[in-house]
Amino acid sequence: MTELIERSGKATHQETRAHNSRLVLSTIYDRGPISRADVARLTGLTRTTVSDVVGELIRDGLAREIGRGPSTGGKAPILLEVTDDARHLVGLDLGEKAFRGAIVDLRGEVVSAIEVPVDDRDGDVAIDRVFRLVDRLLATTDRPILGIGIGTAGLIDTTVGTVLQAVNLDWRDVPLGALLRARTGLPVYVANDSQATALAEHVFGGPRTSNLIVVKVGEGIGAGLVLGGRLFQGDGFGAGEIGHMTVCPGGTLCRCGRLGCLETVASSRAIVASLAGTGIANLDEAVAALRAGDERVRAVVEAAGRELGLAVAWLVGTLNVERVLLVGSVAEFGEPWLAAVRETMQSSALALITQDTTVEIGRLHDDAVVLGASALLMTRELGLSLAGLPSEVAADVAEVPSAGVAAEASA
Amino acid sequence: MTELIERSGKATHQETRAHNSRLVLSTIYDRGPISRADVARLTGLTRTTVSDVVGELIRDGLAREIGRGPSTGGKAPILLEVTDDARHLVGLDLGEKAFRGAIVDLRGEVVSAIEVPVDDRDGDVAIDRVFRLVDRLLATTDRPILGIGIGTAGLIDTTVGTVLQAVNLDWRDVPLGALLRARTGLPVYVANDSQATALAEHVFGGPRTSNLIVVKVGEGIGAGLVLGGRLFQGDGFGAGEIGHMTVCPGGTLCRCGRLGCLETVASSRAIVASLAGTGIANLDEAVAALRAGDERVRAVVEAAGRELGLAVAWLVGTLNVERVLLVGSVAEFGEPWLAAVRETMQSSALALITQDTTVEIGRLHDDAVVLGASALLMTRELGLSLAGLPSEVAADVAEVPSAGVAAEASA
Repeated sequence: MTELIERSGKATHQETRAHNSRLVLSTIYDRGPISRADVARLTGLTRTTVSDVVGELIRDGLAREIGRGPSTGGKAPILLEVTDDARHLVGLDLGEKAFRGAIVDLRGEVVSAIEVPVDDRDGDVAIDRVFRLVDRLLATTDRPILGIGIGTAGLIDTTVGTVLQAVNLDWRDVPLGALLRARTGLPVYVANDSQATALAEHVFGGPRTSNLIVVKVGEGIGAGLVLGGRLFQGDGFGAGEIGHMTVCPGGTLCRCGRLGCLETVASSRAIVASLAGTGIANLDEAVAALRAGDERVRAVVEAAGRELGLAVAWLVGTLNVERVLLVGSVAEFGEPWLAAVRETMQSSALALITQDTTVEIGRLHDDAVVLGASALLMTRELGLSLAGLPSEVAADVAEVPSAGVAAEASA
Repeated sequence: MTELIERSGKATHQETRAHNSRLVLSTIYDRGPISRADVARLTGLTRTTVSDVVGELIRDGLAREIGRGPSTGGKAPILLEVTDDARHLVGLDLGEKAFRGAIVDLRGEVVSAIEVPVDDRDGDVAIDRVFRLVDRLLATTDRPILGIGIGTAGLIDTTVGTVLQAVNLDWRDVPLGALLRARTGLPVYVANDSQATALAEHVFGGPRTSNLIVVKVGEGIGAGLVLGGRLFQGDGFGAGEIGHMTVCPGGTLCRCGRLGCLETVASSRAIVASLAGTGIANLDEAVAALRAGDERVRAVVEAAGRELGLAVAWLVGTLNVERVLLVGSVAEFGEPWLAAVRETMQSSALALITQDTTVEIGRLHDDAVVLGASALLMTRELGLSLAGLPSEVAADVAEVPSAGVAAEASA
């Protein structure tokens, strides 16, 4: 409240106008086809202000008139909707085995996609690969580009787009956002890949719940937390970085340099390492062997599932979030792994908390990170209410109306 | 946003009036002494509305005029402040060794307090003890009573005030809120004691940080989470219930019926049990022995601290919250225990996350739960912006202004 008043007291006309524009666009996006009158009713703005704003949105190509709706007595109103392909976005997923990039429209539909295999871990090569991927994607569209959204493993400072630490890409303090902004002149947002996935599953993955935990299990392990309808990133953007929690004190050496991290017992690398000597050399072969009925693989996969289940129990017990989704390459093991995760989670925290908790495989598969990064970009740049993001935008939407702009009551 | 619009579209004049009243009271509470003109400026309400609302608040005794402030040119403005003892609150802490009750004013000052030792675990007796404690407290004041706020261990449904499960009080599905409302006719709010403590530390305990983790360690162990400036309770109010997380699969039998819970290795009971045969029979004796230099006690306390440190590492690694407070009877061991918690926390999660995290002993000591329960009550009943509570109130404050009450811009 105090902050609300202090900030909103300083709202300028320009801020007010930008706020109104975002509010109107967001309302048309969520509710369209919709009339100007209904936009005014829903937003509390006057008809005049709504008409002005809609005029600008139409001039910018972001909204359009699509004919008349049913009359409610008088003249039938003209209906508005957002032009879904008025802008294109570049979404990137800097994954462990491949960099995936896509052109996405304002509705989160993938227009085109390019995947580039990654088989080395050289940091400078990785940056150059990102540049070339963006160039190739931009060449595939002639629409105005809203910006670039990127999801990547590691600890990211989302405000500036700097990768503080990404073990798998050999990056440390890489200003990826600044580099790409300088190269393309476009807005760039960078987020942790598990956080981006959580956002994507929240926005595009099915019924929206207020709280959601997504755990991504591949070569690394990370979680994304949607709490109270918003992506929660913590004080240093590292919320959900559970891969390097110590679960076996004195255990196996992790690539982070410490011993017994969760990744050493539950990641794809841990599973493949446990199969040493069996002739199974990578995850794909392990998945194939499991499907063919290999009991050794099944035992290893279930053991890894139990280790992950303990971690999921910690998340669930700590947060009492009743919807958990598992994603990432290890999820390809399917049922035996999922069952092990579920059983261990259920038996490792208070029953009153775990009994209402569901653990499922995520729905978005390959596109999750790209869509999450795109959602981040759309919300930050256009104020679309795709997800309650902890952005300035999301805050503005709630705060500005009580500003010096006369939130007045006919008391 | 969608919900915001749907809800606010239905805001009635009565809701608007109640909202404005809360907004004005909250502003005077936070900023007083303050003039009507400044309240109008800060809230965005008109002078007329503010004057009407202030008139009502003065008639209700909640606010008062305290003379004229400095002139800024014209006539010096009359200043307003909240009358801190206009209402009294009953705050209760149903602790493990004692039930503590206090009369608290609107500023969180304890006016009087009563403590009743508890030496049994009979559920019906406990309820009767609560009733008598409330009666005794009410007899000590002649002020209008705002209501009753209660903090107790266990899993609580805060919306109705039902204790779903409290192992230490032998309660299961006890409608404590309803029972007390029926008996006293007063509003009653019940919250988990660790959650109440987190709220109290957030509101009254020092510099407010957006995120805060409080871990309460006594006979039981629980955490309270303030995330994004609000108490986070999860989907089933059980956020922070970490005491029954499995940390030693197949370990010691816990009073919850499962094996190897955190409470079996890090609670006061665990510490006392580890000292069996030393002649030390309870926590107070253990604290005294440690202070007298008993190395056996020191070793046991440090081991318990390391176990707790792993749990704190999970909380910190999961949430990336940089301010952690430890409270409860075990915190009386002080430095050797705290050092063990800190060291284990630091070494058990990603360094980039733990390096900026501080772990301290909480500041409020005995009054924390009482104050947290009072803060809950004040926010819910009066809309005071004591803490970002996940209440209807807190939501209203942010939402109603964009209602059909014309949040209009001079665009």
